[in-house]
Amino acid sequence: MRPTTETPPPPRTSAAAYAPLSATDRTRLRRGGHKQRTDRSELYALLDEGLFCHLGVIVDGAPRVLPTAYGRIDDTLYLHGSTGARSLRTDAEVCVTVTLVDGLVLARSAFHHSVNHRSAMIYGRPRVVAEEAERTAGLRALTEQISPGRWDAVRAPDRKEMAATRVLALSLAEASVKVRTGPPVDEEEDHALDVWAGVVPVRRVFGEPEPDPLLRSGIEVPRHVVERRSPA
Amino acid sequence: MRPTTETPPPPRTSAAAYAPLSATDRTRLRRGGHKQRTDRSELYALLDEGLFCHLGVIVDGAPRVLPTAYGRIDDTLYLHGSTGARSLRTDAEVCVTVTLVDGLVLARSAFHHSVNHRSAMIYGRPRVVAEEAERTAGLRALTEQISPGRWDAVRAPDRKEMAATRVLALSLAEASVKVRTGPPVDEEEDHALDVWAGVVPVRRVFGEPEPDPLLRSGIEVPRHVVERRSPA
Repeated sequence: MRPTTETPPPPRTSAAAYAPLSATDRTRLRRGGHKQRTDRSELYALLDEGLFCHLGVIVDGAPRVLPTAYGRIDDTLYLHGSTGARSLRTDAEVCVTVTLVDGLVLARSAFHHSVNHRSAMIYGRPRVVAEEAERTAGLRALTEQISPGRWDAVRAPDRKEMAATRVLALSLAEASVKVRTGPPVDEEEDHALDVWAGVVPVRRVFGEPEPDPLLRSGIEVPRHVVERRSPA
Repeated sequence: MRPTTETPPPPRTSAAAYAPLSATDRTRLRRGGHKQRTDRSELYALLDEGLFCHLGVIVDGAPRVLPTAYGRIDDTLYLHGSTGARSLRTDAEVCVTVTLVDGLVLARSAFHHSVNHRSAMIYGRPRVVAEEAERTAGLRALTEQISPGRWDAVRAPDRKEMAATRVLALSLAEASVKVRTGPPVDEEEDHALDVWAGVVPVRRVFGEPEPDPLLRSGIEVPRHVVERRSPA
């Protein structure tokens, strides 16, 4: 039995936000330029589908790549962390990459093997969000990224939890999207080989929800959880 | 109909390689230390299950995070790229992160939402592989990572392809593994709330192989492709 009183989550993109993607020196692909996309809606779609990003920072002069949650509102990506986290310092450049793997590309030659994927790279200097309403909006976006519709169903952060959390905002102004799709591209002469070639699709699926062992009896799985689906 | 003449791929780990994971300053978790694993076999299992890594480098003083393929042999990770790729310079520190997402952790409070995942972070300075046999072994590992059993079924790289490819080797000496697993951990007083809590499993699945439109007729999908499965 599913409750029917839930409202859908608000849209994450206002109509005004669809400027084309930038082409700065570092967002322009040097190799495989045909894989580059310039439509900002593709960036949004990819970010909205992902669950985790990889946050690149520099710590003690060396790169560090941290898997972490994120959320998006219009042209801003929100990240969060403990107020004590070393890697969430600001005033420094970061790179955030979100990658979705779509298929194994099996060619007739080892050289032309590949992976169909979509990836977004965002460059910039995140700012610490100070204003309380935006902090709450950012945390809401982070929660909704994990489970759309979840924020309104759960207890909101209290004062202590808010104080322990740093919310960072990263503009999506400087971003690139790369998409590899379709069958393998083999050398012409290899087509004669007696080798199977093609794509094995890779998909992310959500399994049957597993209730917390401490869940009070009589609480049904809510609709927003039941209906969580990957895009087809 | 499946061919029956294929041999299984060689093991990727020799018995001697199972030293515990290091605990250098940067591989030690500052927060959530209970999530840290020290068994090297967990690192290997995670790396062998992944398809893509995120390679962190510094370009013009800023971090850059690149999704890319990899392969593993014993205690070495292999990466590859075009000989002209800017981001594959060596003699510089890199960080390679591999992340597998296992579940959405839905708590009773927004604050305790999380994502069950396993991630490995590897730090080091990759070396350019010069020796031909190791270059071939590295490319074999990269191909086998995408599709175990594939290398022996396809055309090996020719001289021109080898010359166009840079193979990098990164030691797994300095690495950490972090695992978040299990149900949400809510505040005691929140257990009384009328909110469903639990985990939604996230799984990677391989779909039905899609033949290359240019595939010659009469070539069956080989066993190593049919049998590609995610660990249960």
